[in-house]
Parts: sequence; structure tokens; C-alpha cells
Amino acid sequence: MKNFEFYNPTRIIFGRGTAPQVGNELKKIGQKFLLVYGQSHIKKTGLYDKVMNSISDAGIEVVEFPGVKSNPALSHAKEGVAKAKKEKVDGILAVGGGSVIDEAKAISAGAVSEIDIWRFFTQEKQIQAALPVCTILTIPATGSEMNGGMVITNEQTKEKFGFMNENLYPRFSILDPTLTYTIPKDYTAYSATDAISHLIEGYLTHEDEWAPIQDRYVESLVKTIMESTERIMKKPDDYQGRATMMWAASLAWNGLGTAGVGNCQIPNHMLEHPLSGLYDIAHGAGLSVVIPAWMKWALKQNPEKIARLGRAVFDIGQQDDTEAAQETANAFKAWFDKVGSPTSLESAGISHPDFDELCEQALSVGKIWDITSYSKDELKDIYELCRA
Amino acid sequence: MKNFEFYNPTRIIFGRGTAPQVGNELKKIGQKFLLVYGQSHIKKTGLYDKVMNSISDAGIEVVEFPGVKSNPALSHAKEGVAKAKKEKVDGILAVGGGSVIDEAKAISAGAVSEIDIWRFFTQEKQIQAALPVCTILTIPATGSEMNGGMVITNEQTKEKFGFMNENLYPRFSILDPTLTYTIPKDYTAYSATDAISHLIEGYLTHEDEWAPIQDRYVESLVKTIMESTERIMKKPDDYQGRATMMWAASLAWNGLGTAGVGNCQIPNHMLEHPLSGLYDIAHGAGLSVVIPAWMKWALKQNPEKIARLGRAVFDIGQQDDTEAAQETANAFKAWFDKVGSPTSLESAGISHPDFDELCEQALSVGKIWDITSYSKDELKDIYELCRA
Repeated sequence: MKNFEFYNPTRIIFGRGTAPQVGNELKKIGQKFLLVYGQSHIKKTGLYDKVMNSISDAGIEVVEFPGVKSNPALSHAKEGVAKAKKEKVDGILAVGGGSVIDEAKAISAGAVSEIDIWRFFTQEKQIQAALPVCTILTIPATGSEMNGGMVITNEQTKEKFGFMNENLYPRFSILDPTLTYTIPKDYTAYSATDAISHLIEGYLTHEDEWAPIQDRYVESLVKTIMESTERIMKKPDDYQGRATMMWAASLAWNGLGTAGVGNCQIPNHMLEHPLSGLYDIAHGAGLSVVIPAWMKWALKQNPEKIARLGRAVFDIGQQDDTEAAQETANAFKAWFDKVGSPTSLESAGISHPDFDELCEQALSVGKIWDITSYSKDELKDIYELCRA
Repeated sequence: MKNFEFYNPTRIIFGRGTAPQVGNELKKIGQKFLLVYGQSHIKKTGLYDKVMNSISDAGIEVVEFPGVKSNPALSHAKEGVAKAKKEKVDGILAVGGGSVIDEAKAISAGAVSEIDIWRFFTQEKQIQAALPVCTILTIPATGSEMNGGMVITNEQTKEKFGFMNENLYPRFSILDPTLTYTIPKDYTAYSATDAISHLIEGYLTHEDEWAPIQDRYVESLVKTIMESTERIMKKPDDYQGRATMMWAASLAWNGLGTAGVGNCQIPNHMLEHPLSGLYDIAHGAGLSVVIPAWMKWALKQNPEKIARLGRAVFDIGQQDDTEAAQETANAFKAWFDKVGSPTSLESAGISHPDFDELCEQALSVGKIWDITSYSKDELKDIYELCRA
């Protein structure tokens, strides 16, 4: 085990019917909040009304800031910063999925600073403080509800950058699995892919020779996410399936999976960000294209760990590691296909990929995330494997 | 999955050589601390000097309060409360194992209240605030370094009571595995037993019909604790073994194993507290006596979960559940014997147990912890099984 710090102060309020607790929880923090959400979805489902009633019962004032898109846009976040400053809010309430929460975090950091928020993403500046962010999660996937991470897309440069900062942990996150009943099948699949990717990135790239706590944690959660997703695919309002998926997705990226394993990388995210940045596809959809391709490439250098993952998750047999790793890559591909998350550029709707641009962007993302071992040719090889 | 709240704000600073960070960390919190520790152990190992140097470099003032015993005594904690009040400290620094940390927590609650602290333990009063507690852990076992729990023994009534409160989470805990190299073999075994017990209590008593996150979390950690302990028994300064054990013990009782499983109980702790309370044996030693006996008794009502645990941890075969559960109880007993944690009252040094008094005390502990389903006769049956 390697030296680490672990700190995760987010309060999770989990379960059926918990959304109306929001007003009382906010009251412990402040009086006036910026309410950040996406499009009309939360109005259709009735969640908006529930939240507004709870807030009004608690005597909390909100200023609305809707319009967050998936792959949230820098320009919109900057508008949010201006609004938060003008209205002098005490905090941000994000109601939505990872995109809404990430943009809320960007606003929370910008609201207490004079720095152009994009400079936090390019790592020219460090976040020193932020307004409290509180969340009601509607799509379990990114883990943003229980971590200090955020991702924003700069529409001008088409760059999609992300990072972690301790000031960005949500103060509390309300996770009500019944709010996820209406997630359509494709997004349910993308969510599962996203959460699985968060688990396997560190697992497959750390170099600690003995990490039974972290490795078993990952294997258990990957298996559990698959089982939950299969329950949900059969029955969208399967409470146990939705609840298990929701909590597993938070645990997948809350720091525990990699605490103590030392250096590790997120190459699949480095490869995916250019896809969703350039072609505006869902992040999870891009990941299911990238993961099997990356595995097929990576197993040439290091098949052991991929083989171990396949044995733990898919009960792949005891033949040699390279064969087992190949089977593992195929098994992930088959599973993504089964649940309906795309596994080729074509099926993700990217018919004419610009490989050169993809590689350039992957190189810049890699530089920011300190993943510098991939040459442009190697990146191209992996993107080529995404065709099939 | 059942509704739950999860909140654990303790910052973990983990790894080789981390103890000298204590001064700078304390400085973020206050200027004057009560230094709580046990006997001469931390002086012999050089830890005391390291801590004092770091504290003095950071310009922090400390008031010493040594003398904490294992199964920490209410009267000593009350002396600590008086000292903390008199010296007007900003917080408590606990350097030691679970007993030292627990007593530090009791002092931290008493220091900001006029209530007799024993009334918190009898649940007559609720803790509303506490001084910040910071810890340097020397024995991984109780999980107190990463939870809001504490246990104190009232020497007058011989009652050993414990509970959880959100104000008692340590502000930070420094976990340096090299500090545990000097733990003797018997206490290494008791630590493992204690951590395993924390995991299996909830696992074996919750009634959620599908809890793959929590159940796999427990199975993984129990297996990992056993593997680590076996490494340590071969080589007391095996860093990976000590580090893995240390982190696993914190994870075993930090709330994650039971978050979402709904009601569950801690019957083995209910049975053990009277043993260590009346006979002053190590808590872990009492637990290894109780666990196989309780399993043998409990498998008559509900063999499935015990069987599942045995299959996951000891690869016990697929025969019927009652047989598998019996084998599981035997396998735990054999493992405790192997590492040197006692598995009978006699081998724990209790030659003349007072069954009547044990049962009475178990009934009072059970009442406080809301475990009321055990009759005195049933308790006696289980204690009788502890003889063998």
C-alpha cells in the first residue's frame, strides 16, 4: 500500500422519498441558493414541484438557473457565476445528473473568485474556496455527488477538461432511487458504463503489487453494477436494482477505490473526452466504445490484471493471462452490447471520426492529467480499434 | 436497500512516516491540546518523542494526560474532562489504540458540557457538541479512528457501554503502519478478531434480501484481514501486511459495511462486553471466544447467511446450508486458534465464569443497544457454548 490522504465529508441522504428533506437541510447552510438544473425533465417528473415546496416550507429563497446541457458548457457556467455573484447567494443547489452537479461546482468556485474559471481547468490556477454545493441526484453515473471532481467543455476550443479539488465536495447529496425510474434504457446503460469505467481505471493502471482491499472493492462493485443494471433492464422500477446502482455509482468514484494504490491513470477517460467533446455524444456511450478497444491494446503490455478482472467479474477460466485478458475485453464488449451501450464509433453515431484531431485532444487531456506515456501513434492505434 | 444517512468527515492521513505531520495538522485546528495516551509504550518506541518534536516545531502547546488503560475507565475519563476544562484546551490529541481514542472522545464530549459523561453512555443524555479529537493510531482494531463511536467501562458498576455520535468523528487520524510493527503476536491476533467482528455483525443480522454492495464489501474485507494477519504472523514488519490490516480495520467499522442494509444488530459485542467488563480481558480475545459459539447457536435459526460467509471466506463447499454454516463456525474457530486468539473461556483465562452475572450484563447492554430478542436462557446457552 502507498501513502495517501482520504477525506470525503459529503453527507449522503439516501432512500425512497428523501427529496423533500432538501429544504430543512439547506436551512442549516444558508438562506438563499442558486437552483441549477437542466431542461424540462425535472418539471415533467414532478421533482421540481417537490423541491420548490420543500424549499418554500423551509423559508429558503431560490434564484433559478436552468439550462445546463449534458457535457456542460463553459459559457453557461460563466453565466451562472455572474448570476450567483449578482444575487449574492449562500450556496448552490444542483438538481440533476453529473452534468448539472459539475456545472454547479464550477459556479461555486467562480462565485467566490475573480479568476476566469477556465483557468482552474487548465490548471493555471488552483481553487482556494467555493460556495457550498448541495445536490439532489437524478442520474447515478459520474459520482460527482460524492466527490470533489468536475468536468466542463469549452465550446470554443472543444476541449473537455476535468479535475478534483477538496473545496468541491458537495455539502450533502440526496439520493432517492425512485427519481431514477424514468431514466431511459440507453442512459441507464451509459450510467453503468460510466460507473464501471471509474472503478476499472485505477484498478488496471496502479502498480502496487498487493492491493487486496482496493482490488476486491473494485471487482465487487463492477459485478454489482452489472447485476443491478440487468435487473433494471428487465424492470425499470425495480427498487433494489435502482438503489444498488445508485449507491454503487457513488462508491465507484468517491476516492475509496484508489486510496492507497499509489499512482494510477485514467486512460479510458483521456481517450473518451475527445469523443464526447468533439461529437457531443454521451460520456458513457463514448466509454463503452473506448474500454474494449483500450483493453485489447493494453493487454499486449500487461495482460495479468485485465485477466484477473475477467476472472473475478465474468468467471473467465484459468487459461493463460493473455487469452483470459482477450476474453475479458470481449466479455465487456458483449455486456455493453447486451445492455445497449455502443461499442464502436459507428454505433455511437460517429461515422467520420477525425483521428488526427482526436489524438491531438487526447494528448492535451493526457498532458493535464499527467498521462504522458501514450504517443500519438499509440493513441491512433487505440482509436482505430474503436472502429470495430 | 433501506434508507440511510452516511457521513464520515474524518481525514485519514495514511502511510509510512506520517506521524511527524501531526504538528502542522493540529495548527489548523487550535493552539493548545490535551495529549491523551496510555502507559509507557509510546515512549519506548520513540513515537512520543516524534510527536513532541513535531508539536513543538509547530508551536503547539500540549498538556499531558497519560494513563489510559485498555477497557478505558470512566473515572480516568472524568479526570481527563476536569483537566481539559481547567486547561481550556482547544482539542484532544489521542496517541494510541482504540482505548486511548475512545477515552479521548469521552473527554472531548465532557469538556464542553456540565453533564456527567456516564449519562451519555446510559443514553439518558445526548451529546450535542465536543472538542475536536485528533488521533495517531498505534493499534488497528476498533475503527474508532474513523468513526463516531466510543466505549467506556464504569469500574463501579462493571458495566461496559458504548454508542455512536456524529460529534465524535476524529477531525483527522494519522495511520502509520510502521507504528504497528511492535504490536505483539497476541494483540495482532486480537486486533484481527475485533475488525472481523465489526464486519460480520451487520452482515449476519441484517434482513435486506439483496445487499450485494454491503455483503461483498464485508466478505472482501474479512478475507483481506485474514490474509494480512497471516503475513504479519510470519513477519511482524511486513509493511504490506501491516498497512493492509490497518486500513481494513478502519474500513471495517466506518459505517460503510452497514450503510443501506437497514436494521442490524451486534450480538457478539453484546455477549463480549460483559466478558471484558467483568474479567478485564482484551476485547478481541473475548470476541474470538464468543463468535464461534454465537454462530453455532445462530445457525439453528438462520444458517443461510453464515453459510454464505463461509463459502466466500473459506471456500466451503456447496452442501446444505446448515452443514456449511457449521463448517463456517468451525473454520472461524480454527483460524482464531491458528493466529492465537482464544476460543474458549478457559483459554481466555476465565476459569470460573459467573454465567448469571454475564447474562444479566448482556441483558443490560442489549437493552441499551436495542437487542431485546435474546432471553436469559438463550444467552446462557450461548455462554455455555463458549466453554468448549
